[in-house]
This record gives sequence, structure tokens and C-alpha cells, in this order.
Amino acid sequence: MIGIFDSGIGGMTVARAVEQLLPNYPIVYYGDIARTPYGPKSPETIINYSIRNTEFLLDKGAKLIIIACNSASSVATKTLRDRFQVPIIEVISPAAERAIQISKTRRIGIIGTKATVKSGIYQQTINKANPEFKVFAKACPLLVPLVEENWLNKRETKMILRRYLYPLKNQQIDTLVLGCTHYPLLKDLIQARIGKKVQLIDSSIQTAHYVKEYLLRHPEIVNEQSDASHSYYASDCTETALKVAERIFHRPMELIVA
Amino acid sequence: MIGIFDSGIGGMTVARAVEQLLPNYPIVYYGDIARTPYGPKSPETIINYSIRNTEFLLDKGAKLIIIACNSASSVATKTLRDRFQVPIIEVISPAAERAIQISKTRRIGIIGTKATVKSGIYQQTINKANPEFKVFAKACPLLVPLVEENWLNKRETKMILRRYLYPLKNQQIDTLVLGCTHYPLLKDLIQARIGKKVQLIDSSIQTAHYVKEYLLRHPEIVNEQSDASHSYYASDCTETALKVAERIFHRPMELIVA
Repeated sequence: MIGIFDSGIGGMTVARAVEQLLPNYPIVYYGDIARTPYGPKSPETIINYSIRNTEFLLDKGAKLIIIACNSASSVATKTLRDRFQVPIIEVISPAAERAIQISKTRRIGIIGTKATVKSGIYQQTINKANPEFKVFAKACPLLVPLVEENWLNKRETKMILRRYLYPLKNQQIDTLVLGCTHYPLLKDLIQARIGKKVQLIDSSIQTAHYVKEYLLRHPEIVNEQSDASHSYYASDCTETALKVAERIFHRPMELIVA
Repeated sequence: MIGIFDSGIGGMTVARAVEQLLPNYPIVYYGDIARTPYGPKSPETIINYSIRNTEFLLDKGAKLIIIACNSASSVATKTLRDRFQVPIIEVISPAAERAIQISKTRRIGIIGTKATVKSGIYQQTINKANPEFKVFAKACPLLVPLVEENWLNKRETKMILRRYLYPLKNQQIDTLVLGCTHYPLLKDLIQARIGKKVQLIDSSIQTAHYVKEYLLRHPEIVNEQSDASHSYYASDCTETALKVAERIFHRPMELIVA
């Protein structure tokens, strides 16, 4: 069983990408909707919640954990790897590696939550691989609430995006990492504002590719099944959460409150 | 000791109003910053958190509890009153009573979180007192994140406010209840957009007046002290939270993480 957790609903963009790439693998998802969002909270709090979420997924039979949340990946990965025996996959490295691969000017932009940007994790990961890359990160704390409100086509959302992206555009980046699992829902708006020449990297899709490669190399960890189950658990369920989930999966969804 | 809790920082507008009206009463505050916001969450989750917050304050010696959060007041008051022996004061009734007093056209607007508006509590409270009043409620879920970001003077905030307030303006209300303890920080912007003729009601100030009257009638519950202590606890502490707290109190603040 592949275990996936997120602070709430955003991580379902990862779950969906994994479902599409690995349709025959059982998945159990846990969204911590009762404590969402993680992005504005302290590393200590995010680490505590991440431990609890991982324990929940292990109880459900997960043999591999995907931290489908950039904020939790940024601050909690080390603790989870120290504490638990199963493989822990985070969403930062796959996106950072892809950015290094495709950037020609070596000027990479990152957008994410406060927790992610403040951790400096993307800068560290990219510069560890190649110190010549310039990384420009911008925290965009209002994007998660705007996505949750489904304000995807409102004038205010476009203006706020323009304001957030302006300093990155000014730095003439050629690659932009969507460093929050909510942001793929804003992909077209972001592309329009940052310009066509900038390549966007969706950390959800990169992570799913990484998981696929990982399971090819380690087939003993999770078994393929012809009728693989996909269960979606959450610590709370609201109409808004369900709507965002259905927008991500393009199908009716059921969240089991646990 | 007066105990005050909120989902996070917004309830400090109530704490400040209580401090100003009742400077000689000891206060213990608890802000559930680790689980903030409550507004988008389910009644069950908000009730669970409210029980825990009340227990924390009772442990610290509180003899009276103020639910300084409209979302928690809307859905958790009954449970807390059934469960605990101390007086439980909520922020809805004082604001609703004031609205009934001052509205001449009997057309009252309410703005608040999704949880507050969905509960229908303001409508029920006002119409129980007088069924002839028309109450128009509008959920404004983006205002809390905008206040937390300190976007108090940004063009986008003004546009979003105009969008939220438009249907209430259209209903020709003469009184508007700020039904969320964050909203007093947006008072001037709201007044400018809803129009000078509409009277705003700050539930924080109304609640502090109610508490003062209550303690005059029940002096045995909390003792006045010449050197009354004011302690501010929170389940998490972040730079943003501290900044909002300092903006509310106009002084340096310390939050004790517990």
C-alpha cells in the first residue's frame, strides 16, 4: 500500500498523479483537514502533525510514505526518516532535480508557502547539486485560501498572482517550481502572468514519476494488484474540501473522517 | 481569572477590549494557532477544539470563559455550557442585542466565517428577539487570511471587500455586525465600502461591555486585583501571529507556547 499524506486537500494533486501513473497500486491517503493549513505554522507544529499522519498511514498498512505537502516535506522529512523504517518520499527533490535538468539560464524561481520558503530547502537542494544556479523564492500565502475558495478565475486572484510573481519575473527566471501542491490548480493563470517562456514545474507530477521509478527499483515494497483500492481519509470533512477534491480528481469523491 | 480563547489571534481584539474596560481583572488567553483557522472547519471539529481550549483555561485557574471567536461561539456554546460549571460568555448575543437596539430600518447585515454564517446563529438570535427584523448574512472567508497577511491597505483587499459587501449594500441594511474577531482590523475599509450611513457593530467591544456588566452583577466570580496579571498562551507561535497580536495591542507581545 502506498501511503500519502498532506495538510489537507492539495496533496490530492499528488495522489491523482500517482493513480494515473501507477493505476495498479493500492493507495491510502490522509488529509489533515482539521488542522489545515500547515504553511503558516511553525516547523515544530508541522513535524508533530507529520509524525501523527505517518502513524495513521502505517496503521492502515502503508509500506511507503509520500509527504504530499511541500511545507511538511521542507521541515519534517528528516524526522520522519529517522523515526520510521519505511521509505519516506518527499516532493521537494523531484521538483528540484527537474528544475536543474531543464533550466538553461540557471535562474530558477520557487513559489510556496511561508514554511517552505522560510526553510530554504529548495535553494539548498538545488545549490547542493550545482552551486552555480541562482534560486529566487517567493512565499505566496494567499494562494491556498484563493484555491480553496475556487476563485480560480477572479480578477483579484490574477492581481494577487501578478503581485507575487513580479519579483521573480524581474529576476528573469526561465523555470518556476510550483512548490505547493495546491498550485497546479492555478497553473494556467500562473503561466499567463509569468510569461510563456518560463517553464513551470509541477511538483505533484515530478513526485509521481519519482515514485514510479522507485517502485520499479524496489518492487518488493508494494505489490501491484489488479483491483487496487484507493481510500481517502481525512481528519475533517467540509463541503469546501470535498469540492476542491472533486475539482482535482474530476469525479465524485468520498472522504472517510478518521 | 477571566479565561478567553480563540482559534488564534483574532480573539485578541476581545482580550484587548476586556483589558481596557476591566484593567484590574486577571486575564488568561489561549489562542489555538496550531489549529487555526476554525472558520472553514466542521462544527464537530470546532466543538472538540473548544472543549480542549476551555479545559486549558480552567487548568490555569479561569472562573469565567469568554469564547472570543464567532465560529466557536456559533457552534460550541451549548456543548461548553452543558459540560462545564463556569459561566460561558459568547460573542454573538452581545453583538446581536446591540444591532437590535440601533437598527432603525430593521435590516441588519452580518459578515463572518463560513462556520458562523452557515450556523444561522445571528439570524436565530435576532429573530428570536424580534421576528420583524430582516437579517442578511454573508460569509467572507478570504478576510481572515488577508488580515493575517497585513494586507490592510492593498487594492486587492478593497476589491474583495467590495465584492463581499455588495449583496448586503444591495439589501439596504442600516447596521452591519462584524461577526468575526479579525474584522475590527478592517473596520475603516469596511465602513468606506458599505457607506457612512451603515453603523458597524464590533462584536469584540460589545462582548467586553457585556462581561463588565456580568461581573458587576456577579462580583463573586472573579476578584479585582491592583496588579492583575495578563497571560497570553498559544498552541503555536509564528512571526505572523506575533505581528498581528502586536498590531491589535499596539505594544510588544509575548506568546507562551503550551
